[in-house]
Amino acid sequence: MKVYHLYSGGKDSSLAAWILQRLGYEVELITISFGLLDSWKYAKETAERLGFNHEVVVLDREILEKAAKMCITDMHPSNAIQFIHEQALEEIASREDVERISDGTRRDDRVPFLDLRKTRSLEDRFSVQYIRPLLGLGYKTIRELTEKLFIVEIRESEKLEKSDYEVELRHLLRLKGVDPLTIFPKRHYQSRVLGWRRQDL
Amino acid sequence: MKVYHLYSGGKDSSLAAWILQRLGYEVELITISFGLLDSWKYAKETAERLGFNHEVVVLDREILEKAAKMCITDMHPSNAIQFIHEQALEEIASREDVERISDGTRRDDRVPFLDLRKTRSLEDRFSVQYIRPLLGLGYKTIRELTEKLFIVEIRESEKLEKSDYEVELRHLLRLKGVDPLTIFPKRHYQSRVLGWRRQDL
Repeated sequence: MKVYHLYSGGKDSSLAAWILQRLGYEVELITISFGLLDSWKYAKETAERLGFNHEVVVLDREILEKAAKMCITDMHPSNAIQFIHEQALEEIASREDVERISDGTRRDDRVPFLDLRKTRSLEDRFSVQYIRPLLGLGYKTIRELTEKLFIVEIRESEKLEKSDYEVELRHLLRLKGVDPLTIFPKRHYQSRVLGWRRQDL
Repeated sequence: MKVYHLYSGGKDSSLAAWILQRLGYEVELITISFGLLDSWKYAKETAERLGFNHEVVVLDREILEKAAKMCITDMHPSNAIQFIHEQALEEIASREDVERISDGTRRDDRVPFLDLRKTRSLEDRFSVQYIRPLLGLGYKTIRELTEKLFIVEIRESEKLEKSDYEVELRHLLRLKGVDPLTIFPKRHYQSRVLGWRRQDL
């Protein structure tokens, strides 16, 4: 049972990958890049430390361009992040050999998040299983599990070496002369997984 | 990490119990009874075959009375089943030693199902984690996993030895002179877990 799991190197997508592995899935981690920066390398490094297979999938730069325009129109990144995530899921789901896709989206997330209609549409259009191991878990449960499983680095948001969509999106906005701080809400601290604290609970 | 898991002996709640166990939780299965029938014994039997701890929790008969009245008013069991499930969750959550509760509700379920607002309210009011291992899984994923894990008996609905809320609810309706077939939708076949096919995937 092979599953292709969208992976940023953060706590949520790492926890989801661990759950899939515990359930017996053969987990292939996928990090999305638009080829603008090499920020995917942080996810690759974390994936290697955790012992997972890892692959970088480069999406069409047009998707990032469209997302940047959405940011500028909305003066907020929500719709853009949602758009990129849906494009990423569809790209993986559309591959011929892919039967199962997965991500680390949570019950309490606003974006990216697929509602029931979009979830079923994705599964039906591409004949895939879309598995979200964290959907039934609240923030307390996720915190308890990640604290036990992972060594985590917490840093100020701007300084953290990350591999999520935001990094390249911010970069493209800067190239267009737009200050990302006018678009993205301020978050003082973010986290990145550095390795296992333990692999079994 | 002990979790109290609402358990009927069916495929869904058995799969959810297996997932919790694989994640390292100490799983205590709980079957609800209103003391009207001994239908809880089927869940106990399945729990024992699967090797889980099992406990029967008797809820106030008033809850079943109220649920029966809802069935008669609505001429449909949805609100009644939802009401019983919420009462069961609250009963377990209100125990002093309980930090984590769980059930086998699915992404595609209509009832019983707690939306985000009710979920958070339950967690906040009782200071518990409410964990739903199947919430992020679609029917294909659940079918694939249960077929690999469990030996399942499929029978006509009326003949199956089950331990869900419906059994005592139907019985109470009959005692009140109401034919349950006028209330419950016809389902030709239902399933019950008989044992492990394998415990690891």
